[in-house]
Amino acid sequence: MLSERLTAYAALTNEKLDELLGACGADDAAPLLGRSMAYSVFSGGKRLRPALCMAACDFAGGRAEDALLPACALELIHTYSLIHDDLPAMDDDDYRRGRPSSHVAFGEANAILAGDGLQALAFAVLSDCPARDAAGYIARGAFEMVMGQSLDCSAAPGEVPLETLQRYKTGALFRAAAASGAACANAPKSLVDSLVRFADAYGMLFQITDDILDCEGEAAALGKSVGKDAKAGKGTFATVYGVQRAGAFAKEYAGKAREALRDAGGGDASFFTELVGYTLERRS
Amino acid sequence: MLSERLTAYAALTNEKLDELLGACGADDAAPLLGRSMAYSVFSGGKRLRPALCMAACDFAGGRAEDALLPACALELIHTYSLIHDDLPAMDDDDYRRGRPSSHVAFGEANAILAGDGLQALAFAVLSDCPARDAAGYIARGAFEMVMGQSLDCSAAPGEVPLETLQRYKTGALFRAAAASGAACANAPKSLVDSLVRFADAYGMLFQITDDILDCEGEAAALGKSVGKDAKAGKGTFATVYGVQRAGAFAKEYAGKAREALRDAGGGDASFFTELVGYTLERRS
Repeated sequence: MLSERLTAYAALTNEKLDELLGACGADDAAPLLGRSMAYSVFSGGKRLRPALCMAACDFAGGRAEDALLPACALELIHTYSLIHDDLPAMDDDDYRRGRPSSHVAFGEANAILAGDGLQALAFAVLSDCPARDAAGYIARGAFEMVMGQSLDCSAAPGEVPLETLQRYKTGALFRAAAASGAACANAPKSLVDSLVRFADAYGMLFQITDDILDCEGEAAALGKSVGKDAKAGKGTFATVYGVQRAGAFAKEYAGKAREALRDAGGGDASFFTELVGYTLERRS
Repeated sequence: MLSERLTAYAALTNEKLDELLGACGADDAAPLLGRSMAYSVFSGGKRLRPALCMAACDFAGGRAEDALLPACALELIHTYSLIHDDLPAMDDDDYRRGRPSSHVAFGEANAILAGDGLQALAFAVLSDCPARDAAGYIARGAFEMVMGQSLDCSAAPGEVPLETLQRYKTGALFRAAAASGAACANAPKSLVDSLVRFADAYGMLFQITDDILDCEGEAAALGKSVGKDAKAGKGTFATVYGVQRAGAFAKEYAGKAREALRDAGGGDASFFTELVGYTLERRS
């Protein structure tokens, strides 16, 4: 049931992303840019942020399709952030979703530009969204995400609490997904707030399980380097607290996420509650 | 008279940029990001794109202040593009506006993030602009600019006509400035179009005189490396056509710019016509 909804959201997202990338003009005017953007956008992402965005719209009484433009914009921004994260000057990761990273496939300059172009395209897409607040939520989320990246690059180990760091780095786009989706259903502020609280807790749950998988998962299932966080000496929930305590934190955040959903009242929360359960148990 | 108006627009822009950077949250949450963004934003730029934006609003019957948010957003985007252009993987320029480039001052990772953050901040700022069309014009301009960068990086010399390249690379933000400024005055489409045609021609005039100055200017007056285009084997109007023919092109575009202003009718065009004259004669 969960996987059906996730698959349906992902299918809607992929179809629209394909249309948006085809219509942006790059294929004709700057083909290498078009190719490098498409390479990273269509590399098998789970489309989790779009799903969260469309499900929030759904939950708040709108139709999932009403949130399709913000959903795509979020995925474009998420993709740009992965491309820039992988750059040699950043995490220097040659491997992403089972394929060479953008800078390995296209060179560093083109990878920087693919990221820059995807961010600009996201906001061009959002300028066509009738829900005015969506662009603001997403722009502020994209900015907070960069603040998180900056802290991650520049703060001394332990200087910034891991929770704070991840609230910016990962949480910001999850919160923006919930807020922009709800905005597309003209949700009242109290409902937007509850869904944002859900997304905040869910984002932490997602990140913690990601960190645990980085320690324990198999490279083949994840399609990315495994154990790289520990090797890079990066503090993650698993390396700092150990896998067992990290697992306990994950359960704690799952509880907070469910609590926020109860406060949100009204709508059909089955997708969100199943998503929480699925993420707690995920193996890839 | 021209310099008075330019100075007044720049003062408005600088004051607002200072406020926006102060309020974006980076100084508290990610101080290094805040410092690196401010370093490049406040490095003595002429604020030409903001001036064009506010003057277009003025010309179309609005108040310059009505276009202040798009004006600032354009400068944030222009600044991000300079930071990323200077990166070692791109133009590898250590010197910008008389000071070390961002990546020299803050390291490559922080320079990439400063650029990413400035682009996100630009669209956060635009989400508060009452003129709905402004964000779309600017997002599409920012995307076209990246297409131009990509062509510049990837096309073989001579493969893409220099005019085409510069229409994307430089022209896109100039056109976006005119369109977004006019949108803030609720200008009719025909007026937006004429002002965009003016900005397109003016952008070419500006770029050609820039190229001529790169050949002929003095480093001290320009505050950046001189002759670097020729050294890098980059085709510019001056290196490809020679300074004399480039000068003739500049006059041609000045004529086109004046023609577009005549078609725009109505408003007080003195600022724009003086800007054209000043740019034709500029020595820095």
